[in-house]
Amino acid sequence: MTTDFTATRALFHIPEGMIYLDGNSLGPMPRAAAARVARTVTDEWGDMLITGWNRAGWMAQPTRVGDRIARLIGAEPGHVVMGDTLSIKVYQAIASALEMNPTRRVILSDSGNFPSDLYMADGLCRTLGQGYTLRVVAPEEVLDAIDETVAVTMITEVDYRTGRKHDMKAITARAHQKGAIAVWDLAHSAGAVPVDLAGCRADFAVGCTYKYLNSGPGGPAFIYVAPRHAEAARPALSGWLGHEAPFAFDPDYRPGRGIERMRVGTPPVLQLAALEAALDIWDMTNMADIRTASLALTDQFIAGIEAACPTLELATPRDHDARGSQVSFRHPEGYAIMQALIAHGVIGDFRAPDILRFGFTPLYIGADDVTRAIEILAKVMAEALWDRPDYKVKARVT
Amino acid sequence: MTTDFTATRALFHIPEGMIYLDGNSLGPMPRAAAARVARTVTDEWGDMLITGWNRAGWMAQPTRVGDRIARLIGAEPGHVVMGDTLSIKVYQAIASALEMNPTRRVILSDSGNFPSDLYMADGLCRTLGQGYTLRVVAPEEVLDAIDETVAVTMITEVDYRTGRKHDMKAITARAHQKGAIAVWDLAHSAGAVPVDLAGCRADFAVGCTYKYLNSGPGGPAFIYVAPRHAEAARPALSGWLGHEAPFAFDPDYRPGRGIERMRVGTPPVLQLAALEAALDIWDMTNMADIRTASLALTDQFIAGIEAACPTLELATPRDHDARGSQVSFRHPEGYAIMQALIAHGVIGDFRAPDILRFGFTPLYIGADDVTRAIEILAKVMAEALWDRPDYKVKARVT
Repeated sequence: MTTDFTATRALFHIPEGMIYLDGNSLGPMPRAAAARVARTVTDEWGDMLITGWNRAGWMAQPTRVGDRIARLIGAEPGHVVMGDTLSIKVYQAIASALEMNPTRRVILSDSGNFPSDLYMADGLCRTLGQGYTLRVVAPEEVLDAIDETVAVTMITEVDYRTGRKHDMKAITARAHQKGAIAVWDLAHSAGAVPVDLAGCRADFAVGCTYKYLNSGPGGPAFIYVAPRHAEAARPALSGWLGHEAPFAFDPDYRPGRGIERMRVGTPPVLQLAALEAALDIWDMTNMADIRTASLALTDQFIAGIEAACPTLELATPRDHDARGSQVSFRHPEGYAIMQALIAHGVIGDFRAPDILRFGFTPLYIGADDVTRAIEILAKVMAEALWDRPDYKVKARVT
Repeated sequence: MTTDFTATRALFHIPEGMIYLDGNSLGPMPRAAAARVARTVTDEWGDMLITGWNRAGWMAQPTRVGDRIARLIGAEPGHVVMGDTLSIKVYQAIASALEMNPTRRVILSDSGNFPSDLYMADGLCRTLGQGYTLRVVAPEEVLDAIDETVAVTMITEVDYRTGRKHDMKAITARAHQKGAIAVWDLAHSAGAVPVDLAGCRADFAVGCTYKYLNSGPGGPAFIYVAPRHAEAARPALSGWLGHEAPFAFDPDYRPGRGIERMRVGTPPVLQLAALEAALDIWDMTNMADIRTASLALTDQFIAGIEAACPTLELATPRDHDARGSQVSFRHPEGYAIMQALIAHGVIGDFRAPDILRFGFTPLYIGADDVTRAIEILAKVMAEALWDRPDYKVKARVT
């Protein structure tokens, strides 16, 4: 099956005249999402009330949806579950992983990781005390920094600013060779690049769904635990829905089977309904086709901007193997440039101090969009449209 | 202002012919919720895309909504924030509270607490090690069990099974007298009974919104930190949206101002939209009126059932001061009785081993409903309608 991207594109709502290159921050709305969520509100919550937990399948929704995501990230079926936010899932994963390596005290990460991952890890280390430490190195130093002191590696596969992609297989292998547990954050990978968690022998993985997977604002996160750890990992956030028998209301906690134990509280049923509408589109495609199309789009954008805008400095690797599904350029006036570009209908975003960031998502972005985006950015730069007072509110960082 | 409950009742959707006495588990749908959520999906997510974080006010939604709940629980404005699930919020509260009392190692709770609170506390103690312990006593022993070894009391004000209500003021005072920090779970209090967090000098409080507050399945939780602790409490779950400047993407965590630091990840915007529709109804009332009406309903139900069903044993206190907004009866065949009752249109629920549970919510339940519910339950009991094979699947606990 080859993906028909013309067909998938028609299934998203993009406002008229807008070129949306920010799906790496918040994916656009699948046209079916509104009806799907409305049905969940009216027909399920409204009419089924409490019986919706069984009749509408809300209780099993986190694992049912998890299985649909498992296919996109190379996870074994039955080993992904939805819930909470990505930061909470990061905490769950590293807390469990640290306990699996009790003689060591170091979480290794890199400075390209998303700050919330670093904050959550640092917060966990402070809670644990006893010498637990977060060690942060430069992205290119990760492989060499994995030594026998490292308990857990916590790496985000694709850098949120530059789109630089780590080598999951090599880092995981090195972690295992040195006796460390590998935790992967797939925030900018799931739906963006092919991921092979099982093939890479990742130990834990986490990710969010409101970026490339298009679940909408505040969509739930997911967590993967490798089958070989699934019955051993102790959940630090031991909520009732991760209990072996939640409705027995036992006073003592007994972890549920496998990935079920990583559930915590009541699942966000309305957000999951929106995600299910998006996954209906994902079911029409495969990550190999997505990757081929994504690389063509990012190659086109890099070539076009470099030819037309010499003052923009590429921050994204040219090497396909080291690139996610976004392209970033640096410019000291990046904030004003992005404001001007947005005002002209091309939506990217800005990340301090100087990064212009553009996400490319073949499901709804085509070569024509890229051509047009290049033309508009070229015009903004050539005519210095950004160099006006209304765009130069440089103090503000959004 | 006296609440017009006829008016509020018309604002909820209750399926035709159903008497819904399970709003203490999942509140019914406000009629405005579907349109409100649809607007958020279509007009905000669909048309505003990433700009919705500012233009639609998603980023400030957790504190804006928190303020509307603050009014219902006697909290100071600006000290309640929404997010995550109740279990996560329990963990946040007790983790911060334990650090404020570093020379002690005991979390005190009672056997009437909701199991997930006990599980989360136990999980935190295991993560901490170093002698941290969860001590669980009988509900009526809590006051005497608070001694100088207790770091934190973790009490759910209203017992989820019996509706027994603790004395928040007395327990908090005793906790403070003995040098402990008082954490309150308001799962069965918020929207059910008047709560005076500030007046009782509670230190932390948490609660959920999908019960009496009618936010829908998976609606977000809330957390309160007393103003005197707000700038001192260290968030154990230190996510980026609790950072002082989330969009500066600093490598180091600095807690945000006051309650903002208890935010973790991206807020569940769709679930919050449903909650806002419910809070529009809450804005029409006040907890004093709710309480007066609630006590009348529970008194009526207790008197009616005790007169008509002598084999049902009341599990809820008769004393108004010790009662929440639910009534529970015990019966060895409770599961089958509840199944039969539900089949006859009266929706309550069952909690193992023998509790029939009924929630009373004046916003949409009136005296006529109670009269009819009594008649139907009396018929089920008198004619032993429950004593049939289809209702007696006793092994199953739901």
